[in-house]
Amino acid sequence: MTVIEELIEIFRRFPGVGPRQAERFVYYLLRQNKNYLDKISRLIPSLSNSVKICQSCQKFYLSNTSDSRVCKICTDKNRQKNILMVVAHDVDLDSIEKSETYDGLYFVLGGTIPILEKNFNQKIRLNALQALVRERAEKDNLKEIILALNANPEGENTAMIIHRELKAITDKYNIKIKMLGRGLSTGTEIEYSDTETIKNALENRF
Amino acid sequence: MTVIEELIEIFRRFPGVGPRQAERFVYYLLRQNKNYLDKISRLIPSLSNSVKICQSCQKFYLSNTSDSRVCKICTDKNRQKNILMVVAHDVDLDSIEKSETYDGLYFVLGGTIPILEKNFNQKIRLNALQALVRERAEKDNLKEIILALNANPEGENTAMIIHRELKAITDKYNIKIKMLGRGLSTGTEIEYSDTETIKNALENRF
Amino acid sequence: MTVIEELIEIFRRFPGVGPRQAERFVYYLLRQNKNYLDKISRLIPSLSNSVKICQSCQKFYLSNTSDSRVCKICTDKNRQKNILMVVAHDVDLDSIEKSETYDGLYFVLGGTIPILEKNFNQKIRLNALQALVRERAEKDNLKEIILALNANPEGENTAMIIHRELKAITDKYNIKIKMLGRGLSTGTEIEYSDTETIKNALENRF
Amino acid sequence: MTVIEELIEIFRRFPGVGPRQAERFVYYLLRQNKNYLDKISRLIPSLSNSVKICQSCQKFYLSNTSDSRVCKICTDKNRQKNILMVVAHDVDLDSIEKSETYDGLYFVLGGTIPILEKNFNQKIRLNALQALVRERAEKDNLKEIILALNANPEGENTAMIIHRELKAITDKYNIKIKMLGRGLSTGTEIEYSDTETIKNALENRF
Repeated sequence: MTVIEELIEIFRRFPGVGPRQAERFVYYLLRQNKNYLDKISRLIPSLSNSVKICQSCQKFYLSNTSDSRVCKICTDKNRQKNILMVVAHDVDLDSIEKSETYDGLYFVLGGTIPILEKNFNQKIRLNALQALVRERAEKDNLKEIILALNANPEGENTAMIIHRELKAITDKYNIKIKMLGRGLSTGTEIEYSDTETIKNALENRF
Repeated sequence: MTVIEELIEIFRRFPGVGPRQAERFVYYLLRQNKNYLDKISRLIPSLSNSVKICQSCQKFYLSNTSDSRVCKICTDKNRQKNILMVVAHDVDLDSIEKSETYDGLYFVLGGTIPILEKNFNQKIRLNALQALVRERAEKDNLKEIILALNANPEGENTAMIIHRELKAITDKYNIKIKMLGRGLSTGTEIEYSDTETIKNALENRF
Repeated sequence: MTVIEELIEIFRRFPGVGPRQAERFVYYLLRQNKNYLDKISRLIPSLSNSVKICQSCQKFYLSNTSDSRVCKICTDKNRQKNILMVVAHDVDLDSIEKSETYDGLYFVLGGTIPILEKNFNQKIRLNALQALVRERAEKDNLKEIILALNANPEGENTAMIIHRELKAITDKYNIKIKMLGRGLSTGTEIEYSDTETIKNALENRF
Repeated sequence: MTVIEELIEIFRRFPGVGPRQAERFVYYLLRQNKNYLDKISRLIPSLSNSVKICQSCQKFYLSNTSDSRVCKICTDKNRQKNILMVVAHDVDLDSIEKSETYDGLYFVLGGTIPILEKNFNQKIRLNALQALVRERAEKDNLKEIILALNANPEGENTAMIIHRELKAITDKYNIKIKMLGRGLSTGTEIEYSDTETIKNALENRF
């Protein structure tokens, strides 16, 4: 394989990129000057140096911002320590933070569990979650876990498995596990809503 | 205007139909035989004969199914009479019925009120709603009104105005007005959710 | 079936209309007043009275515009009589007329022939075409037939069959059958062009 | 700016990539292991080493395939030397080569000239084209130049300017400049064709 073919193969695996677009990326790079290519080339491996994974919530964070092995959110004294929100990916955490509606702590699963998947330990950081919940329960009196997962079958399957795998710990420490509320989301139209959404919207009327 | 041009004009006003499609409708009709055209021609005006508007909920219903001036749902003895769901259109009512999650009564507004619209009596059947609420309160001990409106600014504006315009009656008879629950609807992804939806989903966690 | 169900069934067969939109059409009609419905009801069957099929080109035309059994284009003395363009549908003829690039006569096939279709006489007006070509050849010295069909397999199949079925006549009267030129159409981009288009564009370079 | 922000900025400028996708690219890279990032990092700058620009047609080619400063196509003895196809980008050349319909030589402009653009020398390699045409005319008896540009206003503007800027040379050596043929491209439907396409398709009928 030539350099061009190798790079096309690499770009094809980027999220949402097809073979034609991967090819266009390479032609785009070919038209850039050497300095620019060198800059990209320097930045990409420095990602793994400049970014660390938080030892507590597992989120990526900039390593130069602190010497600690834990991210800013996890060390923030103003955040509630007795509530933990579990999300699938860093982007979900970003989305929640942007909404400025939550001031507890987080845990990033790193994925979700497809239905029928057996090896769910390879899909999500279950051991790290169990360890964190146990630690928070003992040190910070953790009282509630919120599973902030997508409202689709894979999200629900993941929630069900986490429920089950945390049961021993949540029973022992008397921790509640909660799901995000279901109902009409912004823009939802009654005419096009499915039975599940209408049922939830009715039950949660206020 | 020729017959063809008149019909194109008429079809253009059908919901979701553009000029090109309206033209195709006419060509489609031109290719049909006389019997078929006569059949359509008979059916369309019989709509207004065969269908009545329910004097209670204002929904369309088939007139041949009963001599009464009230639809099947409104006369159904198994439905709860002390709860009333207010919807914008018949299609919303159909959508709720299909979900089989509600067994109270309905009222069809016939529209919604755009923001800044002053003449809201021309947009929704406000007088009929007020009359029905008063009647239900006295006869059936109405206790709750559910505003099942779309989760968008026009739906919220309509809800606000109904709240205000029903206040005298709901205060007098001690009737609660409720909104459909907000949160994640089926398929909602955390990453792409807006602040409002995340806030509601968090508040309604369960 | 109720009137509403019958009309939904009818609208579903309109070109490009799905079940949901058909339902919306009926609700739209239900909201119209009686006069409006009566008007539509009068117009639709009058389509078959007010519109005739031209005995020459087979196109629809308004019957009140003339007593003749032939449309305006076919009776227009300024149009060239020794050239005939064959199109699939009336809308294709309209599209060509709008372009103001052709001043010969037309013939509307009324359809195209899918690949492997045996009963092509049921798909296109082949007998009428043969009769017209023979008549034009004898009366008007017809010299050229242009097959203005879509540039897709069904269009090409139709062209091939017409070629074959007209061969006896075109040979006898020495009439040329031509296809529309192939190449880049407006907006075509080289990068996304298929082999056939590039080949034709190269051959027809000018 | 952090490394993450810098990379998001860089990916945003990749063709067809929006801010959200650029962010996803970075998160995707963050999840990859160090070896993989090092590999990308090695490949990108090697693009500029492993790829050369052909001194004749200006196309990119792999430098390790030959010591020559000219690409395989330009050195291929089986290709006709008296015909030159001018394309905007390498991808257009690839598209033509894939069609296997052309066996002459190429020139890659490196861009096109927007309407009203004055500094067209910055947009396309006009000097290199003039030099190549002169050289081919003297050495290889160049007889025809084909402008294989997109069938849109920018393509036509570029063609017009090349015509003018090559006029002195093409007049002197009696070289014809041709455009790709216009007409129906694969899939074009008569009903939706614009006037220009119908006009060209009619003129080029065959």
